Amino acid sequence: MWRLHHFALCPFSRKLRLLMSEKGVPFTLEEENPFAMREEFFLINPTGRTPALTHEDKDITLADSRAIAEYFDETVEKNPMINGTAAGRAEIRRLVALFDENFWGDVTAPLLSERYAKRVVARAAPDSRALRDAMRLADQHLDYIDYLVDHRRWLAGATMSLADLTAAAQISVADYLGGIDWRGHESARGWYSVFKSRPSFQPLLADRVDGVAPPRHYSDVNA
Amino acid sequence: MWRLHHFALCPFSRKLRLLMSEKGVPFTLEEENPFAMREEFFLINPTGRTPALTHEDKDITLADSRAIAEYFDETVEKNPMINGTAAGRAEIRRLVALFDENFWGDVTAPLLSERYAKRVVARAAPDSRALRDAMRLADQHLDYIDYLVDHRRWLAGATMSLADLTAAAQISVADYLGGIDWRGHESARGWYSVFKSRPSFQPLLADRVDGVAPPRHYSDVNA
Repeated sequence: MWRLHHFALCPFSRKLRLLMSEKGVPFTLEEENPFAMREEFFLINPTGRTPALTHEDKDITLADSRAIAEYFDETVEKNPMINGTAAGRAEIRRLVALFDENFWGDVTAPLLSERYAKRVVARAAPDSRALRDAMRLADQHLDYIDYLVDHRRWLAGATMSLADLTAAAQISVADYLGGIDWRGHESARGWYSVFKSRPSFQPLLADRVDGVAPPRHYSDVNA
Repeated sequence: MWRLHHFALCPFSRKLRLLMSEKGVPFTLEEENPFAMREEFFLINPTGRTPALTHEDKDITLADSRAIAEYFDETVEKNPMINGTAAGRAEIRRLVALFDENFWGDVTAPLLSERYAKRVVARAAPDSRALRDAMRLADQHLDYIDYLVDHRRWLAGATMSLADLTAAAQISVADYLGGIDWRGHESARGWYSVFKSRPSFQPLLADRVDGVAPPRHYSDVNA
């Protein structure tokens, strides 16, 4: 059985939980708080970042959420998530990078820093300007998702792909941390609410971390 | 013909120049300084980042260096760069991510900010502590490359892969900006000097940007 070393509010871990669940790959979860910088975890992943994946029977260690996603798309046939023509696959991967790098850097990382790491780990006050900037940038990213959903059935094209899982994973963490204002983003909200009702999403919505409670609408599948 | 929208000191652009050259894909270069944040470029790539790729005959625009690398590895047979078993390919992609994200964030990005953007674009003084930190972290990354090269023929295994191109591209920019101290890293230096003598590398070593000159050893293929 695969063992996913994850952190409940790590969007890259969440992407893999969604992917493995959608593809029907069984796995157990092992909680690893990357803010704790546990020495033993650096032996599993030299970058110290979640997620990493080990296997109880095989001598294999995988790290980096995109590398792991490609691995499962290559080895497990069910529900291909990087599918289509070469150009279509490039579009999926472009959007995966956009959410993993830009949404993460603009929105999820500052929210995690201000509303989790500072409050819970360092017991310091959040920087309200950094929070305002993150929420303003979240709004611009939601505009882009509105645009994509208005032109395509799913974010990267006609079928659900790793782009959708990646975006939903980032947004779910930002939403938990109170950084998402859905007003004026009906298209994005409609796309996201389809996700929230999928079986793969329910364990994510049930997760809680000590010290930070999500807003009321967070786990409401009708919100 | 492909047109690569690139910046001479962008390591992600350099990775693709190496890749397309190694795979024998003809392309022209179009200089795009991402620090200028030119509006027209955001129409090509909504993130405003280099590299992006367009084609004079086909209606196709590609963005994100990893998505583009996968595209060429899927469509051009010569010199496969993401090759081997699924686990081997995962190891290549793990290292690509490590250099694109960790080496970039720890070393290349702060060097570019302090020694190019501040000096040339903003005409401000560099932060000497940020420079010292970047060079200290570069040293740790070179330790890891020493370790890899001592255990494998190339960074990810028995053959040259996208991991080697990615690491060499990042290091070449850091080296241009005076951020690499090769002393004590004979294994990494040996691996890198093999790269420097490849035909694909010569255009990179010949590039210069206004306002910042590289150290003398930078383009010396015997150094």
